[in-house]
Amino acid sequence: MEQLLSQRISNARPSFIREVLKVADNPGIISFAGGLPNPTLFPVAALKQASAAILDEEGEAALQYTATEGHGGLRRWIAERYRATQNLDIDPGQILITNGSQQALDLIGKVLLDAGDGVVIEQPGYLGAIQALTLYQPQFLPVALDDDGIDCEGLRHALDNGRPKLLYTVPNFQNPSGISYSERRRREVAALLAGRKVLLIEDNPYGELRFGGAVPTSFHALLPQQTLLLGSFSKIVAPSLRLGWIVAPHWLLQKLIIAKQAADLHTNGFSQRLLHRYLRDNDIDRHIAAITEVYGRQKAAMEQAIAHYLPAGVRITAPQGGMFLWAELPPQVSALRLFEAALENGVAFVPGHPFYVDRDDSNTLRLNYTNADTATIDDGIRRLGAALKTLMS
Amino acid sequence: MEQLLSQRISNARPSFIREVLKVADNPGIISFAGGLPNPTLFPVAALKQASAAILDEEGEAALQYTATEGHGGLRRWIAERYRATQNLDIDPGQILITNGSQQALDLIGKVLLDAGDGVVIEQPGYLGAIQALTLYQPQFLPVALDDDGIDCEGLRHALDNGRPKLLYTVPNFQNPSGISYSERRRREVAALLAGRKVLLIEDNPYGELRFGGAVPTSFHALLPQQTLLLGSFSKIVAPSLRLGWIVAPHWLLQKLIIAKQAADLHTNGFSQRLLHRYLRDNDIDRHIAAITEVYGRQKAAMEQAIAHYLPAGVRITAPQGGMFLWAELPPQVSALRLFEAALENGVAFVPGHPFYVDRDDSNTLRLNYTNADTATIDDGIRRLGAALKTLMS
Repeated sequence: MEQLLSQRISNARPSFIREVLKVADNPGIISFAGGLPNPTLFPVAALKQASAAILDEEGEAALQYTATEGHGGLRRWIAERYRATQNLDIDPGQILITNGSQQALDLIGKVLLDAGDGVVIEQPGYLGAIQALTLYQPQFLPVALDDDGIDCEGLRHALDNGRPKLLYTVPNFQNPSGISYSERRRREVAALLAGRKVLLIEDNPYGELRFGGAVPTSFHALLPQQTLLLGSFSKIVAPSLRLGWIVAPHWLLQKLIIAKQAADLHTNGFSQRLLHRYLRDNDIDRHIAAITEVYGRQKAAMEQAIAHYLPAGVRITAPQGGMFLWAELPPQVSALRLFEAALENGVAFVPGHPFYVDRDDSNTLRLNYTNADTATIDDGIRRLGAALKTLMS
Repeated sequence: MEQLLSQRISNARPSFIREVLKVADNPGIISFAGGLPNPTLFPVAALKQASAAILDEEGEAALQYTATEGHGGLRRWIAERYRATQNLDIDPGQILITNGSQQALDLIGKVLLDAGDGVVIEQPGYLGAIQALTLYQPQFLPVALDDDGIDCEGLRHALDNGRPKLLYTVPNFQNPSGISYSERRRREVAALLAGRKVLLIEDNPYGELRFGGAVPTSFHALLPQQTLLLGSFSKIVAPSLRLGWIVAPHWLLQKLIIAKQAADLHTNGFSQRLLHRYLRDNDIDRHIAAITEVYGRQKAAMEQAIAHYLPAGVRITAPQGGMFLWAELPPQVSALRLFEAALENGVAFVPGHPFYVDRDDSNTLRLNYTNADTATIDDGIRRLGAALKTLMS
């Protein structure tokens, strides 16, 4: 019966990271492979209170079918937070609540992409976006990333020659690299896009996880009519609730709502009310400060361990927030071979090649520091260093 | 910028029912238009207990990212219930938990349909399926429904000439008609499909809402390798939790998992554990009996009111369960014109034409009886009868 499968799924490869995570889950393995928040920081008790309050006070409404757009209070909360933290002028009516921001990517692909349409993607780029958009059979136009953001010469070339509909970017603490776009690069990218028939997806799941430095200018402020701004509560409250959102111009939001209704009618209404109650009754800034304090400490521990245990030829990014470090090995070293050697030494990471749309191996890798304590981080990087030295000797 | 939209969304019409429901929501209108469960029956207190228990005992795991396939305990519970209630032999590994069974339809479309592929659909048929699958640009092959199920001559013709990949059916208490397939018709349909390269979608959200009669044979028992069996907790526990599932052969489930991961990573994990705890700690059969007792009473009230207030030329289906009655007006009466007249009289329903893939009006309409008490039902049908008499005079 396999010949019944659609072309789009026949072309999709099983997720390499899924296989990595299965292996990394074995007991005895220290894993820097996942992208998991630290669960000890989840606001379990506050969510328990919020859940009881919602079911006591509005149980019937919280359990009934609800609006495709999402819970009105939650949409207003998001709009108000954009105003308070970034002075962005966003109407709650421009916000669609999605089943995590991964669903925003799927809906964007559904509403905008025909087979063969061009999509500019950072190289390396977020794997989840590659997976979601791949099913709409676009032509990916990879453009290199440097420490300040996407390469503007490469971007200009892709815009002029590939005539893309979309540019996908994670401008703050990018997954996988950890880099953030400089202010100057943001303005250069916006100037390149302005007036063209192209939309920019500003995916910002990590922006609130900032250890230092000033909050940069959102692409939404620079290009309000051409930007689709994506956000998520997964990293600042809890990922299992699958609550993200998309901010879009009204003409596009109407279409996204039609696609959302066809996809799953609406996002979990009980969880939307639960989250809204939690946000109303608790100090989210204090909670985020508690998270960034821990993550900043864990990142520093990983940087120290890397300086101590890894050879000098390994280059590491220096993010000021987020969840990941990105390592570049000496050119001749295969990250896939290092992965095998590291597993034998009891440590896992994600080899870099799945973050490129056109590679089978690379000399790069992603390290997550949010889901292990500092002693475990030191032990894991020590194991990684030993594996790398064996491989390079 | 509208020229950036994909072909698939440019062809999608805004939902007529969405507009109907907005109008029907006005104060003073008695609405039989929606498909809402009666919220007074939601197990609010038991869910509050289950939520507290989950967050106390497994809070960190319940709030973390989880498996794309779904929660293991919930998948086993579903498999065991199929065994207990229908003697179906289903491996939990064949089950994917979805964000409501609407998402199952979207994932099936994504994994199986290329533009132009044939899909047999009941006429009238479930609007949500039409909406979800329309975005994959199939060729719909409508086949008439009678009181025993889909018309087998029409089906044979569609199979021979349209070479469809899929047949979509709601065999129990169909939405919108309320009809159920007879045992004989099920076997005739299965015999027609057996051995062909076609899959049957058995969508069964209402099967447990049975007021009388024996549980019929599932298509999954008749055609296990060709059936995709869809289920939902929306009608027996609570719709806002968005918890449904799909049972598929292993070769197909692997592809559905890839599509699910791309679509939203996984279904809300907190809600899955919450529901599983609720099912473990409560008697779901007793809860379902309480629901069907109320719905059966409400259905009888609507049938009595129809006999009393509507003219004899109106034909009504006689379902033994589910949530809907389907009315056929005299041939010359437009349901759209009746809708306008009824609204003026303070009562709403859904005109029948959106349930057909090729009509702009019809002499049919859908009436929901689950979300109004018996006195309101009597009042609403009285108003409908007055509107109809005015229109027909």
